[in-house]
Amino acid sequence: METITQIQQHIQKSLADLNWNKQPLGLYQPIGYTLEAGGKRIRPALLLIAYNMYNPNWQTATDAALALEVFHNFTLLHDDLMDNAEQRRGRPSVHIKWNPNTAVLSGDQMMIEAYKLLQNLPAEQLKVCLTLFNQMATEICEGQQYDVDFEQRNDVTVEDYMEMIRLKTAVLLATALKMGALLAGAPEEDAEALYQFGTNIGLAFQLKDDYLDVYGDPATFGKPIGGDIACNKKTFMLITAFHKADTKTRIELQQWLACTNKEKKIKAVTQIYNQLGIDRICEEEVQKYTQKAIANLDFISKKGVNTEALRSLAEKLTARNK
Amino acid sequence: METITQIQQHIQKSLADLNWNKQPLGLYQPIGYTLEAGGKRIRPALLLIAYNMYNPNWQTATDAALALEVFHNFTLLHDDLMDNAEQRRGRPSVHIKWNPNTAVLSGDQMMIEAYKLLQNLPAEQLKVCLTLFNQMATEICEGQQYDVDFEQRNDVTVEDYMEMIRLKTAVLLATALKMGALLAGAPEEDAEALYQFGTNIGLAFQLKDDYLDVYGDPATFGKPIGGDIACNKKTFMLITAFHKADTKTRIELQQWLACTNKEKKIKAVTQIYNQLGIDRICEEEVQKYTQKAIANLDFISKKGVNTEALRSLAEKLTARNK
Repeated sequence: METITQIQQHIQKSLADLNWNKQPLGLYQPIGYTLEAGGKRIRPALLLIAYNMYNPNWQTATDAALALEVFHNFTLLHDDLMDNAEQRRGRPSVHIKWNPNTAVLSGDQMMIEAYKLLQNLPAEQLKVCLTLFNQMATEICEGQQYDVDFEQRNDVTVEDYMEMIRLKTAVLLATALKMGALLAGAPEEDAEALYQFGTNIGLAFQLKDDYLDVYGDPATFGKPIGGDIACNKKTFMLITAFHKADTKTRIELQQWLACTNKEKKIKAVTQIYNQLGIDRICEEEVQKYTQKAIANLDFISKKGVNTEALRSLAEKLTARNK
Repeated sequence: METITQIQQHIQKSLADLNWNKQPLGLYQPIGYTLEAGGKRIRPALLLIAYNMYNPNWQTATDAALALEVFHNFTLLHDDLMDNAEQRRGRPSVHIKWNPNTAVLSGDQMMIEAYKLLQNLPAEQLKVCLTLFNQMATEICEGQQYDVDFEQRNDVTVEDYMEMIRLKTAVLLATALKMGALLAGAPEEDAEALYQFGTNIGLAFQLKDDYLDVYGDPATFGKPIGGDIACNKKTFMLITAFHKADTKTRIELQQWLACTNKEKKIKAVTQIYNQLGIDRICEEEVQKYTQKAIANLDFISKKGVNTEALRSLAEKLTARNK
């Protein structure tokens, strides 16, 4: 088995080998800029790890892995445009460094580049992989639309929220694992268990992200603490707080959401979360989905497949403090 | 052989059968709105006509034909956003009727829908068709980028312009024909000749469009006459006018381009075109590319393939007055 570090180094090198210094520069340079910005390359790593569990020639699946990473970065590029987020990984977003039209068109081309990487797959596996990829791409757009819709709604339930983050975040991790397994020739039931593992770990990951947005260490989290509270984002924590609060606290919470002093608002809402034990509830949910994910791996382990790499990755993703 | 009318009716019906009334509505309704707006459905018709030239079961290729039509409409949706064009086919554009973010996200989903239609192709033909489709999609984005770049440049040659419209317009017609032929099992050299026919007829079509933008009948053209002149678009006609003009006329033309009175400007520039015979030169170019296209068909006709449908379509597209 390859180590995760070896796989991640291979991904970095393969991404760097893609040439974006070509005409028309106005179309391709923003793609190169977006892809060189870094990130943990979790999605392509998951695909190659899953492949490696069933077939030692994991480099064979590089183009499929890169397709997922390019598609993921395309979604970030268009999301930043739609959210008018000025920064991404400490650098100006594409619509800021260039302009909104460039973000639209280079983003479109980036999605096409993901499909171009897929066209390199073996002909006999292409139909299954393209179908899986299209399903994932559709669900990510649906998740993004629900995320937008939720801003205008006051009746979002925990179930609605979990479904939204499943679509927007978890499906991509799940698809990476399933596609890697299928490309390596794994049994269908293993590929399905890995899909479930990816879904559960994705949900745990996003809930942990919501938790860290409130309770993270400002020195290591990478984003300002309290961002979700500041913009009234209907996360698991806020929805649960409304659900758990008595009438008096609910009114209090509602009033704080209307407060324009961000610093005071973040402090007060966090205080209410503390009172209601939302931090503990959220951590329990992270644990719940992590345990479900581990159970998915146990199913595969019992058949004699080595799942160590995914177990340690699951540990890292959900026990992280940044 | 099916008639073009029968094929176009089949396309209309197949497009209408796609269901966009699904959740989340905010994502899918703008796609339905865009596709129901009409248009001549030339691209899917070309694919099915090419298929029908080699195989009577042309309905088999419906999903491939729809993929091209959906992709084409996706490009119109994002182009209208980038150009801030408020209308499309007499109705508000998506970014006007909804908002710019909806245009971005529903446009993205529309591109994915095109790839979802492709996934239905027979597994043994998918790799070739996906590769062809991706190449086309890339070239359309490159064409759009060159079109944007040309606005800032003063050294655009006729060759540059022809290459830009080849990428932005002709490649999609060429790909439709080639894909239809390949799906029907046509010989590679026939598919290639049809690709060349599509390219030449696409160039003739766009030059005719540029011509009609100046010399068309306002009652039938569908867009206001002189739009290209009003916004200083570097079309074949304007580039050729600068090339043919003597120094005095060139200075005069340059001055008129800076004029803010659109009506006067359109009249004056048209007058210069008339003096220089640009109308005749443009019509000759349309004829030149139409003849090249006909020669591409002759190559196939000699092998006993019936090319009548494409001949009559070529006639319609380039002899049109609207």
